Amino acid sequence: MSRGPAPARFSLNQETIRQWSLPELVAGCTAAGVAAVGLWRDPVRRFGVRETAKLVAGAGLRVSSLCRGGFFTAADPAGRAAAREDNRRAVEEAAELGADTLVLVSGGLPEGDRDLAGARRRIAGILGELAPYAAAHGVRLGIEPLHPMYAADRCVVSTLGQALDIAEQFPAEQVGVVIDSYHLWWDERLPAEVRRAGGGGRIVSVQVADWVTPLPKGVLLGRGQLGDGSIDLRAFRKLTDAAGYRGPVEVEIFHPGLWAREGTEVLREVIERYREHVA
Amino acid sequence: MSRGPAPARFSLNQETIRQWSLPELVAGCTAAGVAAVGLWRDPVRRFGVRETAKLVAGAGLRVSSLCRGGFFTAADPAGRAAAREDNRRAVEEAAELGADTLVLVSGGLPEGDRDLAGARRRIAGILGELAPYAAAHGVRLGIEPLHPMYAADRCVVSTLGQALDIAEQFPAEQVGVVIDSYHLWWDERLPAEVRRAGGGGRIVSVQVADWVTPLPKGVLLGRGQLGDGSIDLRAFRKLTDAAGYRGPVEVEIFHPGLWAREGTEVLREVIERYREHVA
Repeated sequence: MSRGPAPARFSLNQETIRQWSLPELVAGCTAAGVAAVGLWRDPVRRFGVRETAKLVAGAGLRVSSLCRGGFFTAADPAGRAAAREDNRRAVEEAAELGADTLVLVSGGLPEGDRDLAGARRRIAGILGELAPYAAAHGVRLGIEPLHPMYAADRCVVSTLGQALDIAEQFPAEQVGVVIDSYHLWWDERLPAEVRRAGGGGRIVSVQVADWVTPLPKGVLLGRGQLGDGSIDLRAFRKLTDAAGYRGPVEVEIFHPGLWAREGTEVLREVIERYREHVA
Repeated sequence: MSRGPAPARFSLNQETIRQWSLPELVAGCTAAGVAAVGLWRDPVRRFGVRETAKLVAGAGLRVSSLCRGGFFTAADPAGRAAAREDNRRAVEEAAELGADTLVLVSGGLPEGDRDLAGARRRIAGILGELAPYAAAHGVRLGIEPLHPMYAADRCVVSTLGQALDIAEQFPAEQVGVVIDSYHLWWDERLPAEVRRAGGGGRIVSVQVADWVTPLPKGVLLGRGQLGDGSIDLRAFRKLTDAAGYRGPVEVEIFHPGLWAREGTEVLREVIERYREHVA
């Protein structure tokens, strides 16, 4: 059963169907009428950044995001220098791909460090150098707050309010925020912070995945297929619409259950679920 | 090596050493000079509420908390009536034990429900009946916010700010808040909200456990021994002191590693860690 091309704002983050190679991703999305994809640096680098850019552009696909830069929280000079270098490479890759935004995940606490407030303060320091570099390459940075359960080991930016507090230290055309339902759905301040983000022209990416329990060990690969969990995804999408966001809505689900299946079938299901629960 | 009795404000939540029977708990705490314990309804009911009250009082132990009432979020009348009844029993048990506070965990989203704001609103409804009942029994209620990773399936109250928004609808001598490092350490608003709680005389219990990663499947039994994780526990305790809290600091760690060991040895280690990282 075909229902015509995917909804216009639908974007597929490639990690949702990570079993696909880049050519399979591009062919699969083209066949399904998907207009945009979110890419990850590792598979892009393995395939070649230039080759990926050609492949994607040749198919007329928009790159809604590149994941990811960041990991800014090192306290030692060597760690900070390495982060600076790696993020410059990420900016160059995002520029070559023509990505709408380079997603930044801040990083967690350095080993043995318990100073969460200090780690949070260090982020703006590196951004002060990275943002102009990105602007010179025509790349917009997007700070992504992750769920508080990742605060220690992955991302000390835990709420949209915190992400905006950092982003607003820079021009809106240089630094915005990534709003992902999975990370933010629980926050009662979300409606107010989404309005704040939209009002300031700071929403550079919107992503969706559902919240399902029980969470798996390590809590990394437990994101739910749209409609399988507890999030009112349509209300979430409408919230970002009401704040003025008109860009792609990227489906980013990390789940071994989806990775074990045939990619075309997964994409068909994801698009159906998107129509039913998001669009 | 003995270092004399446990610090004066130290309290042991019985789930930290759940391998102990109630008589073992009371004997172990007495021998170690522990002045207060936090109890759980299930083991207390199995041993007998009256028998537990006698045993604990006979040993001169203070009951810093009884866990727990709550689970208020049912949307159907039968579910709400059952919650009302169960919470009245919990109040009666807390009164018989002479517990400082009855800890309330709100409950998660009802099956198939995605209306988080609605579930949050229903809590105050049941409290409106329960708080006067508790007051009549000389029992103070403590709303415990749990980490946002439990918002769907366990507790829709995810921040201290939300807990206070609810508690403040009732007299301070009837309803306060429980402040647990494990659930709240990531929240940048924590210092301000702890001050708000202390200023209003709302802090009825302070609990500590450390945050360790990776989280286990189900994320329920991964709390860390004091000092093993990412939380600056001394800063956390000082924050509650500065807000005027002078009561017991209860160690509540759910960890199979501690449950597999000999209880006296676990208590000795917990007290040492408490001296090193909290006191």
